[in-house]
Amino acid sequence: MIIIVKNNGSKKQLDNLTDWIKSMGLDIHYSKGETSTVLGVIGDTSKVDIDLLRSLDIVENVTRIQEPYKKANRKFHPEDTIIDVGGNLIGGNHFHMIAGPCSVESETQIIEIAKAVKAAGATLLRGGAFKPRTSPYAFQGMRAEGIKLLLKAKAETGMPIVTEIMSISHLDSFRDVDVIQVGARNMQNFELLKELGKTDKPILLKRGFANTIEEWLMSAEYIMSEGNEKVMLCERGIRTFEPSTRNTLDLSAIPVLKELTHLPIIVDPSHASGLARLVPPLSLAAVGAGADGLIIEVHNNPSKALCDGAQSITPNQFETLANKVKTMLPLVGKEMN
Amino acid sequence: MIIIVKNNGSKKQLDNLTDWIKSMGLDIHYSKGETSTVLGVIGDTSKVDIDLLRSLDIVENVTRIQEPYKKANRKFHPEDTIIDVGGNLIGGNHFHMIAGPCSVESETQIIEIAKAVKAAGATLLRGGAFKPRTSPYAFQGMRAEGIKLLLKAKAETGMPIVTEIMSISHLDSFRDVDVIQVGARNMQNFELLKELGKTDKPILLKRGFANTIEEWLMSAEYIMSEGNEKVMLCERGIRTFEPSTRNTLDLSAIPVLKELTHLPIIVDPSHASGLARLVPPLSLAAVGAGADGLIIEVHNNPSKALCDGAQSITPNQFETLANKVKTMLPLVGKEMN
Amino acid sequence: MIIIVKNNGSKKQLDNLTDWIKSMGLDIHYSKGETSTVLGVIGDTSKVDIDLLRSLDIVENVTRIQEPYKKANRKFHPEDTIIDVGGNLIGGNHFHMIAGPCSVESETQIIEIAKAVKAAGATLLRGGAFKPRTSPYAFQGMRAEGIKLLLKAKAETGMPIVTEIMSISHLDSFRDVDVIQVGARNMQNFELLKELGKTDKPILLKRGFANTIEEWLMSAEYIMSEGNEKVMLCERGIRTFEPSTRNTLDLSAIPVLKELTHLPIIVDPSHASGLARLVPPLSLAAVGAGADGLIIEVHNNPSKALCDGAQSITPNQFETLANKVKTMLPLVGKEMN
Amino acid sequence: MIIIVKNNGSKKQLDNLTDWIKSMGLDIHYSKGETSTVLGVIGDTSKVDIDLLRSLDIVENVTRIQEPYKKANRKFHPEDTIIDVGGNLIGGNHFHMIAGPCSVESETQIIEIAKAVKAAGATLLRGGAFKPRTSPYAFQGMRAEGIKLLLKAKAETGMPIVTEIMSISHLDSFRDVDVIQVGARNMQNFELLKELGKTDKPILLKRGFANTIEEWLMSAEYIMSEGNEKVMLCERGIRTFEPSTRNTLDLSAIPVLKELTHLPIIVDPSHASGLARLVPPLSLAAVGAGADGLIIEVHNNPSKALCDGAQSITPNQFETLANKVKTMLPLVGKEMN
Repeated sequence: MIIIVKNNGSKKQLDNLTDWIKSMGLDIHYSKGETSTVLGVIGDTSKVDIDLLRSLDIVENVTRIQEPYKKANRKFHPEDTIIDVGGNLIGGNHFHMIAGPCSVESETQIIEIAKAVKAAGATLLRGGAFKPRTSPYAFQGMRAEGIKLLLKAKAETGMPIVTEIMSISHLDSFRDVDVIQVGARNMQNFELLKELGKTDKPILLKRGFANTIEEWLMSAEYIMSEGNEKVMLCERGIRTFEPSTRNTLDLSAIPVLKELTHLPIIVDPSHASGLARLVPPLSLAAVGAGADGLIIEVHNNPSKALCDGAQSITPNQFETLANKVKTMLPLVGKEMN
Repeated sequence: MIIIVKNNGSKKQLDNLTDWIKSMGLDIHYSKGETSTVLGVIGDTSKVDIDLLRSLDIVENVTRIQEPYKKANRKFHPEDTIIDVGGNLIGGNHFHMIAGPCSVESETQIIEIAKAVKAAGATLLRGGAFKPRTSPYAFQGMRAEGIKLLLKAKAETGMPIVTEIMSISHLDSFRDVDVIQVGARNMQNFELLKELGKTDKPILLKRGFANTIEEWLMSAEYIMSEGNEKVMLCERGIRTFEPSTRNTLDLSAIPVLKELTHLPIIVDPSHASGLARLVPPLSLAAVGAGADGLIIEVHNNPSKALCDGAQSITPNQFETLANKVKTMLPLVGKEMN
Repeated sequence: MIIIVKNNGSKKQLDNLTDWIKSMGLDIHYSKGETSTVLGVIGDTSKVDIDLLRSLDIVENVTRIQEPYKKANRKFHPEDTIIDVGGNLIGGNHFHMIAGPCSVESETQIIEIAKAVKAAGATLLRGGAFKPRTSPYAFQGMRAEGIKLLLKAKAETGMPIVTEIMSISHLDSFRDVDVIQVGARNMQNFELLKELGKTDKPILLKRGFANTIEEWLMSAEYIMSEGNEKVMLCERGIRTFEPSTRNTLDLSAIPVLKELTHLPIIVDPSHASGLARLVPPLSLAAVGAGADGLIIEVHNNPSKALCDGAQSITPNQFETLANKVKTMLPLVGKEMN
Repeated sequence: MIIIVKNNGSKKQLDNLTDWIKSMGLDIHYSKGETSTVLGVIGDTSKVDIDLLRSLDIVENVTRIQEPYKKANRKFHPEDTIIDVGGNLIGGNHFHMIAGPCSVESETQIIEIAKAVKAAGATLLRGGAFKPRTSPYAFQGMRAEGIKLLLKAKAETGMPIVTEIMSISHLDSFRDVDVIQVGARNMQNFELLKELGKTDKPILLKRGFANTIEEWLMSAEYIMSEGNEKVMLCERGIRTFEPSTRNTLDLSAIPVLKELTHLPIIVDPSHASGLARLVPPLSLAAVGAGADGLIIEVHNNPSKALCDGAQSITPNQFETLANKVKTMLPLVGKEMN
């Protein structure tokens, strides 16, 4: 870590700063210039609060050389993490398609869709039970009951299931869930992340729609620092000024993440765009960018779906897309399963 | 609500849509044009999911006439809400300054600061006990112990206290807290909002750094719809492309909110900018924009503060600022207390 | 166009509004509700200033049904526009790779790179002569001299050339240029657009880094409305809060544009990311999203390049990429040339 | 300037970098660490292209200590710049209100408004002649004819006039204009800035709606480096995700700019919000934040205005506002005129 300190500060300010740094067990290398002094901080600086440093009056600038995350950092874990979800390996040269409806609506619905997407090439089943909705007056999902129906679909098809948690108080309902999803709005719900870090479930950590890649990796670090290293990242669009899509899918994040971290990266084109007809082109784009998988909303009857009907594609459209993805994978050094 | 429907959709798509609207007890008024048909939806449309509508294939555009929030809406509650916090009235023509350290560090520290800010004109004491930190390795606050120290400062000075909650599982520790703060990162932690809606505590709801004004009011509505109408909004900066301040304080939000809602609006210039020297000008700016109060970080020894030292101003600086604010208030039709 | 008007406005306000609308030769269909009235405006509303309408006191909301652009609109021109650039057809099922250095540096340099990229599959040569630089103290390009060198490379290789114009006063230097590029910072330099609309040169119109898709199409419309319909759009990244790439490449824009307009769409992954190692994955992603071509910075000696060395890939890397693109094209229904 | 270089790069890469730095007449101070080396670059680094450095493969990070602008920099020019516009001093402890219609519409209109705003306290007259419009089909202003009418209003009232230039080819029409405005969309039209730098007219440089403060100061530097140091900055809102106002007025920019530069700073609340009723609160907020002046749209008959009627306030509203501003100025150490 490089701290540039103004030379016009008081000796006391500088002493406070250097004492504080040394109190964390770090060494300092000084290099005095004309109008400023460069402090090279040596040691494990991951605990140093860079915002605090930046806000000090005598500090001109701070540059971190070492990333603030360790367990998620590819530097300390060069090989890709591969996560086993019910026999499906996620990460490395594997590629998976996760599919299912926005919301679980009924036993018939979820089982029918599960069978259809499995036949079309999906390996994991997604479905919303606890639904985060902007309005308190909107349908909040079937909640615990929805998870039971997902488990029936799992029993019927053998597909592992992925579903979202909204509060640690619901954890009991997730005992038999295969992958617990943390939604975008909870990406920095640190108390929830810590608790999930104490479980042994694979976690699908969606990016907050206004969070940087570094903040996202720090949230993965929250889970991993508690012992659970089975974290998959999920890019689902960021908030920008452009109104023509619900969010802007940030596909540059994929190759950037591939350098910074060893964790698998899944892309969600359905929520990013909010429009079913954008799902196929954005899916192929995600494959080209190097994603390890896709999570896609599929509904057997989108025009009648209780929620998010029109960002869902049909099982037929999903099959066509899955075939294109399969054809494309060798180009990026990956294969289905 | 106005829904514009393409005329080239199938009859079945249109029937699905109109059946669904009618199933919510709403009426439809049709006005057929050459290439599209305008559906005027009549009745209480606050439960209608506008995103769902927008995503339907046959829908060209949707415009809400009625806002999706009711209890927070000034239309249905034209007078300003005034909230009594230990005898301090917040809202209307009252103006309050809430002050205190970023983090509670010790009994001496919090009592000393409480006395100083009270003498300088503050009416409520703020202080962080449970601290949301981007890094799992950073200081997470004194937690429940910190709240006990805040209560000691309250006993000593008579000032009501404001402190942040991060998880509903900590609610017990907040029994004697006067105002519970919901932080920016939890603004859409809907399960937390619902639980706070079941308490009778005033809530200080910070704006998520990437949330729209409408989403913010919908989060207030989550609390209010459960029965607790004592919600204060707190603008603390939004995330933009500009790197020179931590966030961009959105002061246009104040007059916009004054039209849309009857709830009091507090401004936090300390977190928005992250820089102590920006606090005085942004505080006067907030008064000019029409805020009902300020929440400001004050530390008796900023250069030694454990956290966020340099976004804190000193008690002396706070006093100078409070005097300027007092002078300015008549210009905006407000007064201290 | 649907205008929702508040019922509590004065009769005079409403009369002013309706007189103004009618003065543009438009008809109005009224539908009066309890608290507001819906005006359906019938006729060619492309000249109506929607911002003006929105800002009127009695107007609650305005929704455009018809897009404000006509010549760029796919509704009035359903087939893809195909532009002939020196025998190369751009648009439709054709795919082109445009390559070359950031800046023209010398005759040897530009000819050497031109030959290398042509051998590797590029069909058009790009190179910066007039360079828009944030700092007045930075290298501003070889300017008119640079264009002469590009023309020598064209003579040597037969490749048409693409280069950026910064001021209409330089137009003389562009007489033999095949495609004139309008840079992101000039996307709303309306006087420049109008003048280019009077030429018969194909224009490569880069998206402003903070412009919406609609604004971009309106800028295309500026050129087309003056008579020049040979406009290609170029997505080059938008400004967001994410600092890890220079800009965020908005690939969702590709399928959105394909619906809205018939104009060809080129993607520039080099400027979007600012990082050479991100160019190959983002290029494949652009192909997946449906782009009609790529414009890529290639330098024979990136580590010695005078400008933007490290966002440039080498001719060898370009060849490897071009081969992957070629393999992928059938999947999206396109072919090279 | 601090450059952090990876130790795993090749010797050749490092040599290229250091040779290039030295070729600009700069010295390097090395400090080798375990995984990276810190290069302290000494000398005038304003010509160094930081983007280029950042994009080099062996460069981990670059931190500028010295700002890239010199003439606009307060470090080299500590006292406030004060600009004389027809006897009105702008900057320092002076405060000015610039007012007038969005567009010049007729001789009667502009003279009537000029008299009204002068009576109410305005010292400069604004009015649009050349109008940048998103749509080629919208009213483009009275152009040269509009400037003639502004000059008539100047003759009549003695008020200096401010009006926008869109192309250097129109410069002749601006011979008698007192302040030339550069609009947000042209903030990085570098060829235009350079030409204006060769004139001796005061320039009102509006911030591009997606430009950083540093880019804005670099654009001021473009004008100043050509010899014209009479630059006033004008904050007019930035583009964010929030839809309730046209743009988000960035008032934090005012105190930030006051530290970085000696140039006067004017705030435009009319364009930022697009809503007349937000103009008064945002004006007071701008005064609180430390602005040197306001530029406000005033129309004698907003409901009939040809353009931007409803972001305009009436002369009466302007007078009420001007009186409040006058009352407030002593609090921020300023006075009218």
